[in-house]
Amino acid sequence: MTHSRTVELEGHIIDSGTMQRCFGAVMDLGGSFDVEQFDVGKHETEESYCRLTVSADDPETLRDILHELHQNGAVLEDPSEVDLVAAPADKVVPPNFYSTTNHPTEVLYDGEWIDVERIEMDCALVVDPEGASDGSPRAYTKTLNAVQEGDLVATDQSGIRVNPPERPRSGGGAFGFMQGGVSAERPSESTIREVAEELRAVKEDGGNVMVVAGPAVIHSGAGDALADLVAAGYVDALSAGNGFATHDLERSIYGTSLGMNVETLEHPRKGHKHHIWTISEIIRAGGIEAAVDEGIVTEGVMYECVENDVDTVLAGSIRDDGPLPDTITDAVEAQDAIREQAHDADLVIMLATLLHSVAVGNCLPSTTKTVCVDINPATVTQLLDRGSAQAIGMVTDIGTFVPTLAEFVLEGDEA
Amino acid sequence: MTHSRTVELEGHIIDSGTMQRCFGAVMDLGGSFDVEQFDVGKHETEESYCRLTVSADDPETLRDILHELHQNGAVLEDPSEVDLVAAPADKVVPPNFYSTTNHPTEVLYDGEWIDVERIEMDCALVVDPEGASDGSPRAYTKTLNAVQEGDLVATDQSGIRVNPPERPRSGGGAFGFMQGGVSAERPSESTIREVAEELRAVKEDGGNVMVVAGPAVIHSGAGDALADLVAAGYVDALSAGNGFATHDLERSIYGTSLGMNVETLEHPRKGHKHHIWTISEIIRAGGIEAAVDEGIVTEGVMYECVENDVDTVLAGSIRDDGPLPDTITDAVEAQDAIREQAHDADLVIMLATLLHSVAVGNCLPSTTKTVCVDINPATVTQLLDRGSAQAIGMVTDIGTFVPTLAEFVLEGDEA
Amino acid sequence: MTHSRTVELEGHIIDSGTMQRCFGAVMDLGGSFDVEQFDVGKHETEESYCRLTVSADDPETLRDILHELHQNGAVLEDPSEVDLVAAPADKVVPPNFYSTTNHPTEVLYDGEWIDVERIEMDCALVVDPEGASDGSPRAYTKTLNAVQEGDLVATDQSGIRVNPPERPRSGGGAFGFMQGGVSAERPSESTIREVAEELRAVKEDGGNVMVVAGPAVIHSGAGDALADLVAAGYVDALSAGNGFATHDLERSIYGTSLGMNVETLEHPRKGHKHHIWTISEIIRAGGIEAAVDEGIVTEGVMYECVENDVDTVLAGSIRDDGPLPDTITDAVEAQDAIREQAHDADLVIMLATLLHSVAVGNCLPSTTKTVCVDINPATVTQLLDRGSAQAIGMVTDIGTFVPTLAEFVLEGDEA
Amino acid sequence: MTHSRTVELEGHIIDSGTMQRCFGAVMDLGGSFDVEQFDVGKHETEESYCRLTVSADDPETLRDILHELHQNGAVLEDPSEVDLVAAPADKVVPPNFYSTTNHPTEVLYDGEWIDVERIEMDCALVVDPEGASDGSPRAYTKTLNAVQEGDLVATDQSGIRVNPPERPRSGGGAFGFMQGGVSAERPSESTIREVAEELRAVKEDGGNVMVVAGPAVIHSGAGDALADLVAAGYVDALSAGNGFATHDLERSIYGTSLGMNVETLEHPRKGHKHHIWTISEIIRAGGIEAAVDEGIVTEGVMYECVENDVDTVLAGSIRDDGPLPDTITDAVEAQDAIREQAHDADLVIMLATLLHSVAVGNCLPSTTKTVCVDINPATVTQLLDRGSAQAIGMVTDIGTFVPTLAEFVLEGDEA
Repeated sequence: MTHSRTVELEGHIIDSGTMQRCFGAVMDLGGSFDVEQFDVGKHETEESYCRLTVSADDPETLRDILHELHQNGAVLEDPSEVDLVAAPADKVVPPNFYSTTNHPTEVLYDGEWIDVERIEMDCALVVDPEGASDGSPRAYTKTLNAVQEGDLVATDQSGIRVNPPERPRSGGGAFGFMQGGVSAERPSESTIREVAEELRAVKEDGGNVMVVAGPAVIHSGAGDALADLVAAGYVDALSAGNGFATHDLERSIYGTSLGMNVETLEHPRKGHKHHIWTISEIIRAGGIEAAVDEGIVTEGVMYECVENDVDTVLAGSIRDDGPLPDTITDAVEAQDAIREQAHDADLVIMLATLLHSVAVGNCLPSTTKTVCVDINPATVTQLLDRGSAQAIGMVTDIGTFVPTLAEFVLEGDEA
Repeated sequence: MTHSRTVELEGHIIDSGTMQRCFGAVMDLGGSFDVEQFDVGKHETEESYCRLTVSADDPETLRDILHELHQNGAVLEDPSEVDLVAAPADKVVPPNFYSTTNHPTEVLYDGEWIDVERIEMDCALVVDPEGASDGSPRAYTKTLNAVQEGDLVATDQSGIRVNPPERPRSGGGAFGFMQGGVSAERPSESTIREVAEELRAVKEDGGNVMVVAGPAVIHSGAGDALADLVAAGYVDALSAGNGFATHDLERSIYGTSLGMNVETLEHPRKGHKHHIWTISEIIRAGGIEAAVDEGIVTEGVMYECVENDVDTVLAGSIRDDGPLPDTITDAVEAQDAIREQAHDADLVIMLATLLHSVAVGNCLPSTTKTVCVDINPATVTQLLDRGSAQAIGMVTDIGTFVPTLAEFVLEGDEA
Repeated sequence: MTHSRTVELEGHIIDSGTMQRCFGAVMDLGGSFDVEQFDVGKHETEESYCRLTVSADDPETLRDILHELHQNGAVLEDPSEVDLVAAPADKVVPPNFYSTTNHPTEVLYDGEWIDVERIEMDCALVVDPEGASDGSPRAYTKTLNAVQEGDLVATDQSGIRVNPPERPRSGGGAFGFMQGGVSAERPSESTIREVAEELRAVKEDGGNVMVVAGPAVIHSGAGDALADLVAAGYVDALSAGNGFATHDLERSIYGTSLGMNVETLEHPRKGHKHHIWTISEIIRAGGIEAAVDEGIVTEGVMYECVENDVDTVLAGSIRDDGPLPDTITDAVEAQDAIREQAHDADLVIMLATLLHSVAVGNCLPSTTKTVCVDINPATVTQLLDRGSAQAIGMVTDIGTFVPTLAEFVLEGDEA
Repeated sequence: MTHSRTVELEGHIIDSGTMQRCFGAVMDLGGSFDVEQFDVGKHETEESYCRLTVSADDPETLRDILHELHQNGAVLEDPSEVDLVAAPADKVVPPNFYSTTNHPTEVLYDGEWIDVERIEMDCALVVDPEGASDGSPRAYTKTLNAVQEGDLVATDQSGIRVNPPERPRSGGGAFGFMQGGVSAERPSESTIREVAEELRAVKEDGGNVMVVAGPAVIHSGAGDALADLVAAGYVDALSAGNGFATHDLERSIYGTSLGMNVETLEHPRKGHKHHIWTISEIIRAGGIEAAVDEGIVTEGVMYECVENDVDTVLAGSIRDDGPLPDTITDAVEAQDAIREQAHDADLVIMLATLLHSVAVGNCLPSTTKTVCVDINPATVTQLLDRGSAQAIGMVTDIGTFVPTLAEFVLEGDEA
């Protein structure tokens, strides 16, 4: 027996690849389709519309197909309201709960399509019937461990509309549209110049810039340049780990990073002592801010973050030495802190850290601009694959990238 | 002033991504479009048709847009005949000559669309007005250095129709359609089993299997397994280099590869002697076949290739020691030999060699099935990016891949 | 003015590279040396002895040189007792505290050289004067955050003797001595056979085997093979993360890993739902063991670990979804759990995880045998660089490595 | 029965690692040793001396051990003269011919130790009894395919002395001594500054600088910076391939590299046409120099090489399009041209090309300074492993490396 449903798609669904993905999904999953209506946008500025009946031999296949179409923005022809079920206990979601994408999403509740707040993927979708200040309903995402008993959690996907990013009508500049891969063959300096222009533009628009940085930023000698960007006000939030902070603080206290003087390249031998001594100095002082106040730390990225009130999150890891007193050792607590930073960001620059970049990327809506820089192509590919609509990936050396970026950004200040 | 032309597209142009690429190209290149007619295929088995007028502010932009649409299969509404110009000298093509894609192509000559033979990218397209045995016209590709004075070479792109691969209607199995990237996260053994099934299927259909192999096949201990596949008749052509052959011959003569016994892992020290001695032994014998005949070489891949009359091409490189007398040291001559192999192949398996794989890939039409295996993801990505319509990429260890493949292929023989 | 001290070195100090490193260190750091006595071992079984006076122009340089020689096993000619200072507060070590290496170490306390317990690098060294059950002194390492007020912490390096590993007199088999790099060119199957033999040998000697596993083990289809090794009793401890466990549990509950059926390769689309649903199922059950008891989880690595009472530690990370109730989210607590596993292990097998492998490697003495397998050469190099005296590094595909290893190990059981 | 021989070693054999390697080799290969005499250098400036009797159970093992010790500089106690055998035919060496290392080497002929000229590894060693202008004997290396009938070729290793590089007494600066691996964690800008200083120093001493460059230099936008270095006289020889030259010429003729404008990043679509058109333009002109003369090519690396009479070798490969008329398509002929460049070079800078760098490295004596830069750590490691005594390896982005290098080098000119 054949099972069928009719769905609608609209928007720039041809050149954004939506139609291709939807037709492909139906065929891949073993279904078939009938195009009921297809109104193509005559010009590049006109939207298209498609009404499509999909069929499958069994209800499970149909459900899988509809799920896939749903993720690509299809809506059932006559959508019903969102189906809410109360969470039976803290952290426990109802069976068949709706797991969010990272795209802008709406729910049909009480006859109205309302926007879902705090978009983030792999979350539960909770509706609070009187959550707004005026008593009107609100919808927002909640991570599984934030779900509380009684939360009204969306199940299935009825009454939920996803809006995947569309291809911008005019050129997105260096930010590619949904580019799945990374070309290592783009000219490096021109691309860095584009990132610099974007960074300046975001700040000029009053936007929020988040930097996610790995320890290689310091090893590679790029710490001073990043500190300069912080001092000049180009960084609103820093998300890093215990290792990054320790290497940076070691530079300020001992002039070395893992024991090497990053300018003279001398004495690459006594690394561990400086590293672990740095941690013990900061513990003794009571934390990084205290160490800055006491004059123990007098320069570097962490110093500038303290001096410039940058929102800094240091997340712990099982690889950490110490850790520093400022490091948030609980992963869930650290994730929540990162989530706050990520939700506020307009531009996220990920520098040579897979671990932290994935953690941040997990919290980002697909609409946030991201720049991802790493010397390992696999890291860049993995991060861009997360589906950001506007992303620049660069396979380059962080030790020359950050100084060049800082030069391009800061020379603009002088002009 | 606006410059416009009208083009037509037909086929599975939505789910093959053709429409998306064409609309995107117009916008990227700064033009605009009007859709004159769009007939969408109602079912997955029906083709679609689109007639499109593209416009640009200047003739250069229009030409660039039309070039891009052309490459994606668009044809001018009222196509004129192919525009042929005689080559002024050997190796010298007319200005503005047409450079081929790797997709099936036709030319409109004397009122007929005729298929272009020997499809290969970056070549000239030559029409021989009476080239066929019955005196009818033929069209074929020629590399630049094969062009002869007086050849009638196509210029511009008028009268030329490209047919990019379309998404297969039913699942292509492991062979992905135009997959741009490589997932390192596919389960290895299941994927190898699919390759084994494909290899058996091609041979059962009387097809031609070409193996492109790098020296790592031997170092990694996979030589015996490849020799087994050759001995069992699963390899019709081998394309490799001087290094591959030398390592394989060293194993037969000295039991080592670069001096290491690949079974006992012993004595990894005396490598260079064995390597260069192997070459001098083969030179003394007069070549590989002579060395097999004299009983100097008694096992291994090269031995089985001689015994089983496998079409073998050893191409030289500036990195080679020796080289062996069998190695073709001239790059153009070697390319021509590889080209013959590539044009005959129905399935090409590329094992751990970027250099030779790119050389082979350059000669392949986009319709040939390819399997590319390397431990370096960048190598696999680079090879898949060449636009094969049916390709499997695997990031895995050649030292376990080939033995597992041979086991899966040959166990089928026993059943 | 010249500052000098005389040190002694003994053992297989030539072929273990100790003399080379010591002479090199003096020259690199700008000092000079006089060899007072050098008795070379006449045969490969005899130890050598060297007494050396090192000099430098200033006391800081001399101290740096002596530190370097100390790390390589040199002892001052007339060693003084260990210099102990009480920790002023919890987690706060005295200035100039001694930071441990990962080599076997002794302290001279009360006229006796006593062995330091729980060897681990970058720790404080604490002496408990009456810590042994018979009231005699004990010495052991403590991480910074485990130091308690009043602990007697070693400072400087006087009275401390380090014993770096020496080159084994007879061949160490596949386990290379202090091999700094990794040859990707070793034959894969032969090397896996050696690892299998080592694994069997350790278990036959009643040893403890620790497996450190990343999520790629499951994605790559190697989960069943690892589960077989656990079921057959070859794994005593498993150290992994929330992601590994979730992927493995997803396979048991839904038959997929990130949504892909790892056998049929079908339906690679619905990943996220299964992944997050798996977590919510386990939360609902109350944990992995409860889910096994309830029959929700019926196979896989985690299932076998529960059934076979394998000591399992799941450490959290800021990248985690969920997390599972079994995951230790606090990094310090998780580190302590990993430390217990690491100190008990006789053989550690690290499978495709940089994060967890580094965490485990940080806790290991240089004498523990380790096997490190990853498809990324940089990961393998980084782990081997930690100075394990007996390590095998393999750059290979985990998806073929684990099944091949299991086959080699388990076929021995049948013989 | 025990077989024994006595050998001597002298020089800085402890801190250069010679003793460690020799003792290790004896043990690895299953022999034993007696140290007859060991005079250690008392100061860092004094050489050491060791006389050693090595024994093995069979003559083959003893021969293998002696071979290994020989390669590390050991000489038999009473060396006999070099054992010369006439080559029986062109390209055919006598059985058991001596295959050279890349270290400085001497032969004992007619009672005198004479230096071997044109040091290069994996060659035959030929003595010409009256080869010098004064009729005295000469010794030099010959590749196998250069050997001529009647050449007196050294066999076995008697009468041959190898002098492996010794650790420099004072710091070698950025050039590490026999560093087997590459630290990706060195600070990038400081290291580039050291390379710049070395480049300037070599030119100030009247030395010869050879640049080996891959196509990524042009793609990455670094072509202008390299052209600047050529124009300023810092490059004496350029060794590259057809691809490098074509990309560079395309930039001059069309302003693009593979179709992308490397400054504006625009129009990344029409690549193939420009690439193949460039080749056809150069063919039409008759070569690169003719194209420069005709004003077709007016800037770029190739332009500056023509204008500044830089010794340029373009070697062909089976991957080449075209090729250009200047490209040497025969691998043996190209190798010979590269060999001439390599033997003249005092400093070799290898930029983002594994293929050409290996080819050049194969021809270099171990005493030539080399700098190797690539974004792929495996490439850098592979090149440094060839045993250059003075090498800098950098894992960095060529697109930022070359401009930064040029800036540091050329700013020195202004001072």
